[in-house]
Amino acid sequence: MYVPTKCSLARPRIPDRSRILSKASRVIVTRAETLKPLPPTDDLVFGRHSTDHMMVASFHPKTGWSAPEIKPYGPLSLDPACSCFQYCTSVFEGMKAFAGPDGKPRLFRPNRNMERMTRSAARVALPAFNSDALLELIRLLVMIDSRWVPQAPGCSLYIRPTLIGTRPSLGVAPSDEAMLYVILSPTGPYFRTGSKPVRLLAVGEQVRSWPGGTAGYKLGINYPACFSPQREAAKKGYQQVLWLLGDGTGDSMGMKVTEAGSMNFFVVVKREDEEGVDVITPPLDGTILPGVTRESCITLLRSHSPVSPLHSLDPHTAIRVFETPFTLGDMYKWSSEDRLLEAFGAGTAAVISGVGVVGLDGHPDIEIPEYEGALGPVGKALYDRITDIQEGKVEFGDWSYPCA
Amino acid sequence: MYVPTKCSLARPRIPDRSRILSKASRVIVTRAETLKPLPPTDDLVFGRHSTDHMMVASFHPKTGWSAPEIKPYGPLSLDPACSCFQYCTSVFEGMKAFAGPDGKPRLFRPNRNMERMTRSAARVALPAFNSDALLELIRLLVMIDSRWVPQAPGCSLYIRPTLIGTRPSLGVAPSDEAMLYVILSPTGPYFRTGSKPVRLLAVGEQVRSWPGGTAGYKLGINYPACFSPQREAAKKGYQQVLWLLGDGTGDSMGMKVTEAGSMNFFVVVKREDEEGVDVITPPLDGTILPGVTRESCITLLRSHSPVSPLHSLDPHTAIRVFETPFTLGDMYKWSSEDRLLEAFGAGTAAVISGVGVVGLDGHPDIEIPEYEGALGPVGKALYDRITDIQEGKVEFGDWSYPCA
Repeated sequence: MYVPTKCSLARPRIPDRSRILSKASRVIVTRAETLKPLPPTDDLVFGRHSTDHMMVASFHPKTGWSAPEIKPYGPLSLDPACSCFQYCTSVFEGMKAFAGPDGKPRLFRPNRNMERMTRSAARVALPAFNSDALLELIRLLVMIDSRWVPQAPGCSLYIRPTLIGTRPSLGVAPSDEAMLYVILSPTGPYFRTGSKPVRLLAVGEQVRSWPGGTAGYKLGINYPACFSPQREAAKKGYQQVLWLLGDGTGDSMGMKVTEAGSMNFFVVVKREDEEGVDVITPPLDGTILPGVTRESCITLLRSHSPVSPLHSLDPHTAIRVFETPFTLGDMYKWSSEDRLLEAFGAGTAAVISGVGVVGLDGHPDIEIPEYEGALGPVGKALYDRITDIQEGKVEFGDWSYPCA
Repeated sequence: MYVPTKCSLARPRIPDRSRILSKASRVIVTRAETLKPLPPTDDLVFGRHSTDHMMVASFHPKTGWSAPEIKPYGPLSLDPACSCFQYCTSVFEGMKAFAGPDGKPRLFRPNRNMERMTRSAARVALPAFNSDALLELIRLLVMIDSRWVPQAPGCSLYIRPTLIGTRPSLGVAPSDEAMLYVILSPTGPYFRTGSKPVRLLAVGEQVRSWPGGTAGYKLGINYPACFSPQREAAKKGYQQVLWLLGDGTGDSMGMKVTEAGSMNFFVVVKREDEEGVDVITPPLDGTILPGVTRESCITLLRSHSPVSPLHSLDPHTAIRVFETPFTLGDMYKWSSEDRLLEAFGAGTAAVISGVGVVGLDGHPDIEIPEYEGALGPVGKALYDRITDIQEGKVEFGDWSYPCA
């Protein structure tokens, strides 16, 4: 038996027909009678465990958003003709809650995720929602499940807001019905003792994204075309794919580099003319995700100076940051000149993930210098500083956001 | 109360661990106790009504495919972390059952759909299945729901086989769990009295498909990026989008034409040098769906001769068929020379859908000649012949396939 409780967020209720998930909606909280045992920290594989509760709200064109519910985690019951099954109307976000120095949960730049989710929903013509209200519901859900926020360093509670189209009809049309839900999953440190840099296989025959496509949005549709090439890469001894953008027929060397697996991609290149390094990442031209970790890296790197936010780097290291296209051929050239110092992926799940090798069928591997702990000095400085901010050990503007 | 029945398909059972949906699996049939009233023929809007039963089978990596079940139509219960919600692992097919002259249901070239579904599942790394077994299950389901096959001319029972990934984990990885299901929906004639040719708006800023992408497969992910441009087109007075393939930045006139809405696209162009017409459609280069109706049109057109399969066309009409790229600029040129005689979409839902206008922002509309009943002579001959074959009035090779 569940114990239903009614609690109301701060502001007065707005009618459900408002066509937005009202910030002020009354949330119905039904607590799970029996709580699950917490998994041991060593068992916190990404995305495997669910917590005790979830948040769910539904949209119908005639009645608008339902009152959101926080209730025991459990299955969704949906008509098999629903838009999300047939026409993949699905938007999601990836965020994390971290235990602060006081043990209380805090979020990292959640407004960036809310803004992106709003844009993503519009791109696939799903109903609009009030992202401030969603963020309040996320905070409430995290507080209700706060015992699931791991206290161990490098661990966090992963947060997955999801919006799916639920129009139960096979007609090829926008989904005017939707379900918005949030689920949580405790996750361990991405880097464990003895972690190694990843090996990437560059792929240009299958294409993940293109100009005018949807890669600039966080949509479920950007992922499934990657699974089969990723499997092929694994068979060849590479963990992930480095996605190239060409026309599917041309020379791989001239193709632009876009993303690594499902992370944004950075290279650190020694300057030709003078001391210092250039950190280069592809631009936001619609063919890559505007990642929150990517943006955070760029901001921290651009702030690097003798009064440095990247404390583990020599404050006098001269760093220039470029958001500019580069090709696989450029990477081969930099490597042959011994100027390719580091390569890493950046994303919410791993924060920063060091790359050791980039391969291409029929060509020798690009070998990137090896570093203790799998990250070079720039990647390590970014990882340390971002996780310090996430865990509330260091303040940086409004990036860290207490849940309560 | 439901009445469960066990019935076995012809051949002996193969163990469930075979990793394919066994052709010989025992199917468990549970009939609905109460049957729904049949909707009136005039109310048969595409995809709106579901029939009494559905087919469902599940795949788990440890146990393989479950015994398939035919049971009352009803909701699916799925973990909110399932791959299909998060990473859009979704494959489907569109087929139809038609009442033959004897009143019994028949399918149209179902093997083409089964082959394509097999290829599509592999592209998104979903578990393989035995497509012969799936086709037998579809036949059985259609026979069980045969009272839903409309007898009125131009009506049919739409069949939607669907394969979704059900791995309940947020890790970005192929779904090693899956659900295969088939649902049915009675559908009226696409063309009703007074039907008009559609108005298309050419769009090159948002791009539906790209070489090396997934448009050559029948995947749910190919659809949701189209909804928002389609809405914009509707606001401007166009019913569907004519999708162009460019680099998202260039001149629309030089962009290739790919699909119209979710149909393959054909133009009929008067020859410059001599009598006769060229029927031109984009080639199967991975940027368009290899449609069954498209292929059927090409086959019928190529067979056109004094011993004609296109009975309503003058048998001496000289028709050449080209699967070759053409641009929006080509269409403007043909139109200005009064050589653009017809344009139409081809697909399972509408069979052949006449196009009256192609517009482009900032340019005058291309006006295509008007014809009685919205189809020109080539489109009409194809529509008539294909529907005659579908309804069993004319035999053409093995295209028509009795269900029982």
